[in-house]
Amino acid sequence: MDRPAETLLQGLAASRIAIEAVEPDIDGGRFAAKAIVGEPFRVEADIFCDGHDVITSALLHRRRGDDAWAETPMRHLVNDRWRATVVFREVGHHEFRVASWRDLFATWRLEVTKKNEAGQRITLELEEGWRLVNKVLESRNGSDSADRAALEALLSEIASSPAEGDRLAVLMSDDMAALMRRLGMRVNLTETDTTFPVFVDREKAGFSAWYELFPRSQSGDPARHGTFDDVIARLPYVQGLGFDVLYFPPIHPIGRTNRKGRNNSLTAAPDDPGSPYAIGANEGGHDAIHPQLGSFQDFARLVAAAREHGLEIALDFAIQCSPDHPWIREHPEWFDWRPDGTIKFAENPPKKYEDIVIVHFYREAIPGLWHALRDVVLFWLDRGVRIFRVDNPHTKPLPFWEWLIGEVRQVDPGVIFLAEAFTRPKMMKRLAKVGFNQSYSYFTWRNTKQELTEYLTELTREECRHYMRPNFFVNTPDINPYFLQRSGRPGFQARLFLAATLGTNYGVYSGFELCEAAAMPGREEYFNSEKYEIRAWDWDRPGNIKPDVAFVNRLRNENAALRQFTNLNFYNARNDAILYYGKFTDDLSNFLLFAVNLDPHHAQSAHFEVPLWEFGLPDDATISADDLVTGQPFTWTGKIQQMHLDPNQRPYMAWRLIAPGASR
Amino acid sequence: MDRPAETLLQGLAASRIAIEAVEPDIDGGRFAAKAIVGEPFRVEADIFCDGHDVITSALLHRRRGDDAWAETPMRHLVNDRWRATVVFREVGHHEFRVASWRDLFATWRLEVTKKNEAGQRITLELEEGWRLVNKVLESRNGSDSADRAALEALLSEIASSPAEGDRLAVLMSDDMAALMRRLGMRVNLTETDTTFPVFVDREKAGFSAWYELFPRSQSGDPARHGTFDDVIARLPYVQGLGFDVLYFPPIHPIGRTNRKGRNNSLTAAPDDPGSPYAIGANEGGHDAIHPQLGSFQDFARLVAAAREHGLEIALDFAIQCSPDHPWIREHPEWFDWRPDGTIKFAENPPKKYEDIVIVHFYREAIPGLWHALRDVVLFWLDRGVRIFRVDNPHTKPLPFWEWLIGEVRQVDPGVIFLAEAFTRPKMMKRLAKVGFNQSYSYFTWRNTKQELTEYLTELTREECRHYMRPNFFVNTPDINPYFLQRSGRPGFQARLFLAATLGTNYGVYSGFELCEAAAMPGREEYFNSEKYEIRAWDWDRPGNIKPDVAFVNRLRNENAALRQFTNLNFYNARNDAILYYGKFTDDLSNFLLFAVNLDPHHAQSAHFEVPLWEFGLPDDATISADDLVTGQPFTWTGKIQQMHLDPNQRPYMAWRLIAPGASR
Repeated sequence: MDRPAETLLQGLAASRIAIEAVEPDIDGGRFAAKAIVGEPFRVEADIFCDGHDVITSALLHRRRGDDAWAETPMRHLVNDRWRATVVFREVGHHEFRVASWRDLFATWRLEVTKKNEAGQRITLELEEGWRLVNKVLESRNGSDSADRAALEALLSEIASSPAEGDRLAVLMSDDMAALMRRLGMRVNLTETDTTFPVFVDREKAGFSAWYELFPRSQSGDPARHGTFDDVIARLPYVQGLGFDVLYFPPIHPIGRTNRKGRNNSLTAAPDDPGSPYAIGANEGGHDAIHPQLGSFQDFARLVAAAREHGLEIALDFAIQCSPDHPWIREHPEWFDWRPDGTIKFAENPPKKYEDIVIVHFYREAIPGLWHALRDVVLFWLDRGVRIFRVDNPHTKPLPFWEWLIGEVRQVDPGVIFLAEAFTRPKMMKRLAKVGFNQSYSYFTWRNTKQELTEYLTELTREECRHYMRPNFFVNTPDINPYFLQRSGRPGFQARLFLAATLGTNYGVYSGFELCEAAAMPGREEYFNSEKYEIRAWDWDRPGNIKPDVAFVNRLRNENAALRQFTNLNFYNARNDAILYYGKFTDDLSNFLLFAVNLDPHHAQSAHFEVPLWEFGLPDDATISADDLVTGQPFTWTGKIQQMHLDPNQRPYMAWRLIAPGASR
Repeated sequence: MDRPAETLLQGLAASRIAIEAVEPDIDGGRFAAKAIVGEPFRVEADIFCDGHDVITSALLHRRRGDDAWAETPMRHLVNDRWRATVVFREVGHHEFRVASWRDLFATWRLEVTKKNEAGQRITLELEEGWRLVNKVLESRNGSDSADRAALEALLSEIASSPAEGDRLAVLMSDDMAALMRRLGMRVNLTETDTTFPVFVDREKAGFSAWYELFPRSQSGDPARHGTFDDVIARLPYVQGLGFDVLYFPPIHPIGRTNRKGRNNSLTAAPDDPGSPYAIGANEGGHDAIHPQLGSFQDFARLVAAAREHGLEIALDFAIQCSPDHPWIREHPEWFDWRPDGTIKFAENPPKKYEDIVIVHFYREAIPGLWHALRDVVLFWLDRGVRIFRVDNPHTKPLPFWEWLIGEVRQVDPGVIFLAEAFTRPKMMKRLAKVGFNQSYSYFTWRNTKQELTEYLTELTREECRHYMRPNFFVNTPDINPYFLQRSGRPGFQARLFLAATLGTNYGVYSGFELCEAAAMPGREEYFNSEKYEIRAWDWDRPGNIKPDVAFVNRLRNENAALRQFTNLNFYNARNDAILYYGKFTDDLSNFLLFAVNLDPHHAQSAHFEVPLWEFGLPDDATISADDLVTGQPFTWTGKIQQMHLDPNQRPYMAWRLIAPGASR
């Protein structure tokens, strides 16, 4: 036989163990699964081998670029499924593989056990076990000297034992098993062909409460353009509500050509400020600040002040230009031009967007535009901004995002990108795959019990849970949901509570806490939208739900179970208008139950099940609980209880169950 | 900017379109999906791009090793899912990729249509469309000359039309659209990184009816060892029952050392023939014939005679040796030896198999043993055997099978391997992935309506349908199912009918048609098993179900719907003892319904639903049907009908529905 064929056979033989159905595996390792620094990350795989031999499996993991792998043992669950859990200690790129090998000594030990139990003779088996141990000592060199010495000591003990039973006892001892597990040869060592990437995020990527406001509307006077200093004055308010991210729509100079007037009208009055999404004017483009907001010094003070108030600033990254953007002059090759020499405006026929033009990303725009856009992000990163809400990423090329996010992570792996892609489901998910840390979601339009249950089950149970982190916005400047237009205050309370307890990331656009719902008739647009004019608000407006906001944010911060997304369970409440669900930590030390009346107009009652079974309790058990709204402790006896939710009182309930034997 | 970075960006940009969730995709292209020559093979993928541009997608496919790809258009289904169907015309290795590109002219056409409908001015758009067409003519060279000429003619027509409306009409014409679809530039052409393999089998891999017999039991006299000539005499019987594969347990010389006696006893009487699975004696091993069966000439005559009776011979490939196998002398390095110098017998502690030893596949057995085993298969292939039933493949290494099957396919891609792996589910599936064309399954132990529904749903709906073809054996020499031990004749009729109509591949071990059920007490073993002695049978034994066997095999051969496996639908019959299901061809020209009473001891009735909706008919429609058992035509009016199945009459029903307007 010729040498190449023999090599081929040896290669085939080295993959003796089947390792498949690795999870998380995002498109065959093409994309990274997401993890949070310091939090458990779970890997599973189907692992099996021909025959009856014992196999041992391990998860290998490391920072991308490191030479050495760390090794975590995997444990067999059932039906050839194996699992390991690791905790990554550093933000950034990591990777893992799965390895498995035949464990000859463990196989020997299992077979001898069975033969012993069956009363079969095992004299030869004793000799075979002895040889296995000896072979390890012969083949291994000094690296594990303590283990080697221990093994040699056990072998001497065997050699000096005349009785077969004594020799067997040493060979079968737990000490021997542990030593051989560490030192034994890894026969038919098989590894996954793929190295699976994991991106480890800082905590805020997975747990954040966003508050959105228009800086120019913060002066308290619709006739005066707000400034960064006005925003600084509002920080105690936002902090008081319990948020930790403060997000602004674009803060750049706004174009004058074709500027939109109030309520998106085609002609602007002379004093209309225009849409902040029409980025760019004589004063500059994406790396400039609207002169009426303030200077870079003002911005720096705002970032610092926000930090002192426990708030991180998030900026909008909107890749579109007003017709006055400096790039059009400087880089005409980044834009589309028509046969008559005019620039091509943004449109989605038959809709036209007269105040903006869009760049194209190919042909002569490579590499100039890509670099310029990356540099915009790095420019704001330099000025203390580490969170970017990206406008309409689904209308820009996926490879561009993958490249840009990769470039930015080389500078700071802690930068967070939120994808505002209210688009088709697969595109939404793909954007998360290419790197977006958070994603806007369909939550904003999921109102019924069935809709919420199905959508949350998809998000928390299906494959996307490994890479997509939804951010549940209750409203945005673009979306004044029909539900809230008609629900009144109880609807705002309910939607807030759902977003903050179902989602680990959630967001509120200012005015929501005031139950603002005035709409353009028949549309999901706000009336007198801040996108087109400066507003002033009474932040103490009667009927506001600021206490509810402060309450849910406190609840989130005080309960570890609310920091996890995929620990959501829907429980049984026998009323289609009541959503009833729970979240708990693995150790049951933090066990929360929530109920929300989804009907803002009527009181609703339901029999519901207290999930005593999660604690291993029988259906007639008594369990201690706290009402988290009132702070009152109480007990439930029996699985079936009744609730009553009057939207005019409060459309939600929150309870904490105390595990039997645990203290409060 | 340096050149490598620019190249990187251009490379990223070339993957602008997302192509994911390709199906079939067996472990990222690691394994081949299976197809049948001449039958439709369906490929689907999620395909989408940023923005609103029209994309066009195609399936590329070819024989492995060919240079050129054939191209089949894909069609958009819904929610970014695309599909194409191809028919492979040759047995052997094939492969496919998925490609997609932006279609600028189709995008232009769609936008102009929308603007036209909205009454917007389109003078500039006309010019832009004209330029797109012109650019094609400029950039493409002579390859598509007829198309080019047609395109030039249309452009001349436009040039000579003074009226904008006329020019638009030509640009928007279907002719122009078709030409531009063929000639238009493929902008941002994106292909899957992976080339997905497909193995195309001959028809029998997907549709076969097996009959198993022990040649040595075919003399009609338990005192006389049967011969190949005795088997030749039985061919008309097997053909009369309608089978197309005739399968024998091993036909090789049988060892004498530790030979098993009747009913698997440890000591054999002098005239006991031994288990044919104890392969190898002085007369030879896997490439020899048991002398009492006949010569190679006799075997050749049998193969030829079988072919004349519409039967293909399948041999057993059992990789194990009696202690007398010549390989033990010739190749001691292929076997395991114990410290006392004795050979290691097969065992699965505490069970011992004293009459066989097993080879090991590693160390010094590479490459000699692998080649020897491959050569055994090629040896019998040379003698006309193209189907191998492989004994216990799950106790031999997976890479070995992948290699061996690949080697044999280089000689004859039409060789069929059936995996006899009654083992854990993931190993069962992995063997199918590495190449086995058919697989024994759990059907043999699935008896209740729930068990059958769940298992068949898994096999016909889950990913395994792309690579695993179960062969539903009702019994085997090793499995005398408990259900049949107690069911009497109606149970045999029901299990036969289920296997033959649910499975495209199914098998019967001789004696089943005689309702043989004598068992070792409390075990799934036959009493006086043919594995250990020569039997003689009365093939006309009273109570036999030979007419049922002939009927189901005729049904299978006459109805195209029974040649497909994944077209199975379970329908509603309101009785847990009645399984009710259907199969139909895509064009509805062959639409079959089946009902089986799973209770062999009691008559069962049920209201059931005639699936009028599959024909688009209302619930009160009338439909023509044939009773396939009696041959009687009749009609049903209304969706709900009633059936009665008396096991003492016949435990199954088969109907054919006639599509409205179709002839019988």
